[in-house]
Amino acid sequence: MKNTSKQKTTPIDTPAPLVVIGTVAIDSVETPFGKRDRVFGGSASYFSYAASFFNSVALVANVGNDFPAEYRQILEERKINLGHLETTPGKTFYWKGKYGLDLNSAQTLDTQLNVLKDFNPKVHFKQSPRYLFLANIDPQLQISILDQLAQPRPDFVACDTMNFWIHTKKKELLHVLARVDCVVMNDGEAREFTGESNLVRAGQKIRELGPAHVVIKKGEHGVLLFSEHHFFALPAYPLEAVFDPTGAGDTFAGGMMGYLAASKSVKFEALKRAIAYGSVVASFTVEDFGLDSLRRIKRKDIDERLELFRKISSF
Amino acid sequence: MKNTSKQKTTPIDTPAPLVVIGTVAIDSVETPFGKRDRVFGGSASYFSYAASFFNSVALVANVGNDFPAEYRQILEERKINLGHLETTPGKTFYWKGKYGLDLNSAQTLDTQLNVLKDFNPKVHFKQSPRYLFLANIDPQLQISILDQLAQPRPDFVACDTMNFWIHTKKKELLHVLARVDCVVMNDGEAREFTGESNLVRAGQKIRELGPAHVVIKKGEHGVLLFSEHHFFALPAYPLEAVFDPTGAGDTFAGGMMGYLAASKSVKFEALKRAIAYGSVVASFTVEDFGLDSLRRIKRKDIDERLELFRKISSF
Repeated sequence: MKNTSKQKTTPIDTPAPLVVIGTVAIDSVETPFGKRDRVFGGSASYFSYAASFFNSVALVANVGNDFPAEYRQILEERKINLGHLETTPGKTFYWKGKYGLDLNSAQTLDTQLNVLKDFNPKVHFKQSPRYLFLANIDPQLQISILDQLAQPRPDFVACDTMNFWIHTKKKELLHVLARVDCVVMNDGEAREFTGESNLVRAGQKIRELGPAHVVIKKGEHGVLLFSEHHFFALPAYPLEAVFDPTGAGDTFAGGMMGYLAASKSVKFEALKRAIAYGSVVASFTVEDFGLDSLRRIKRKDIDERLELFRKISSF
Repeated sequence: MKNTSKQKTTPIDTPAPLVVIGTVAIDSVETPFGKRDRVFGGSASYFSYAASFFNSVALVANVGNDFPAEYRQILEERKINLGHLETTPGKTFYWKGKYGLDLNSAQTLDTQLNVLKDFNPKVHFKQSPRYLFLANIDPQLQISILDQLAQPRPDFVACDTMNFWIHTKKKELLHVLARVDCVVMNDGEAREFTGESNLVRAGQKIRELGPAHVVIKKGEHGVLLFSEHHFFALPAYPLEAVFDPTGAGDTFAGGMMGYLAASKSVKFEALKRAIAYGSVVASFTVEDFGLDSLRRIKRKDIDERLELFRKISSF
């Protein structure tokens, strides 16, 4: 593996229509079906790879100088804008996890933040991106990104989060929620965050904190979308075998935001289709380790599965 | 409450298009939202009440001579055929249960089988009903009913079961499954029965045991339907408050079978709509204790909710 040396961040002059801020990581993953060491991972990697099937996308993240050139190439092949992928001395963020038989939640075996500790992105957009996704990072960084956005603000800002921030930075997370158009959470997080066991009430409670749209991901049980006057429920695309759930949530968000950006809409009907597309992309992701499955498919595979999905979920 | 004395079973000369065999019970139920003593319950009661919105239905069950005339009247008002509701000396089947905050599973506080111990129904249909539902009773009784059916057999026989029979009478249950067209199980039962944590595989495994159609109910997460060349996934109708889950599964089955019998079809498209109707009826059931909610609604309320359901679950 070739190391890349410290790179200066290149300002993205033309506003990227879709930008994701998150992590690029090296993952070691064990599932009941196998084990992979040091595969390409991270929320921004998964997100941007998924979004690239639909729309051009720029990634804001940092890596260490151990980051393999092969992994950079995977993103370049998808024409993902890496002008804000900063390389700093040190090691790339590393995560090691293990999934049990139910595959619903990972047990973290090792987390080495490495260069992520110093991640404090300065974005140099002359104009704000029209669509922005704040992937699962420290809510303080999410706020800092929002503070840096030039006017006019994006048409649609969505964010992700996780239990760790709900526990340790709830106040900051509430500030983020007050400023985004959409939040994507999983069901366990939504329940924990609101103290509501009923997900319909949990979704409504989160909406009251600011976001016009709340997306609750339920894994094998599908997705719920809450908006002011609308509601949408979608089952999951049925899979006989989930091989590796890593990246499912990030590629769901990538498919969703990629489709929205491509449709140049933030209307509810577009959001519904965006969520269906996100579900389909995530269904491919979990069929193999890391990005392996997404690297084998083309946009037409996604569209074909979407049509099948529509057929098996309508009456 | 007036007691009715021992009644002779009246043969149903004209074949009922839809028949359910199950229990009629007195339930005491406690949920986080309240408590009701000795309300009208039982799988056959709930099923037939729900089915009666769609089609005429006959009930095969037994009660003790303590069975309140008011409860019989509730069924009579819906024109449910009670020719096979046998009254025998003794007390009616009694169940007492309590639901915790998650409302997903009941804790049984007391079960008094009473006259149910002697339930061994002899059905006197000159012709088999076209649609037959074997509600959750001893698989040996389900087999006995199947043995009594005159030729030609029904167009569609479906059955329910529960963990208790999976544990204690698996062999008999397998015999039942080999002879029915459809089985309705909840997700926990399907997982336990097959040893498969993945519900898609669990559904397929159950299909291999005989039933052409397998329905897996997932409570707040909706329903899955497995058929030979088709699959259908439906989210749950979204409810902010589930008041009392008792009877949800039985009224789901009643709505499903009632719609099927009315549509005179066993085709997959009819089954999909039947499952959507079943879900909608169950969504009303859980909004109040016992049959209270269903007793307030009319068929048009079900149809209106079905249309809303279609809207919020299609993209």
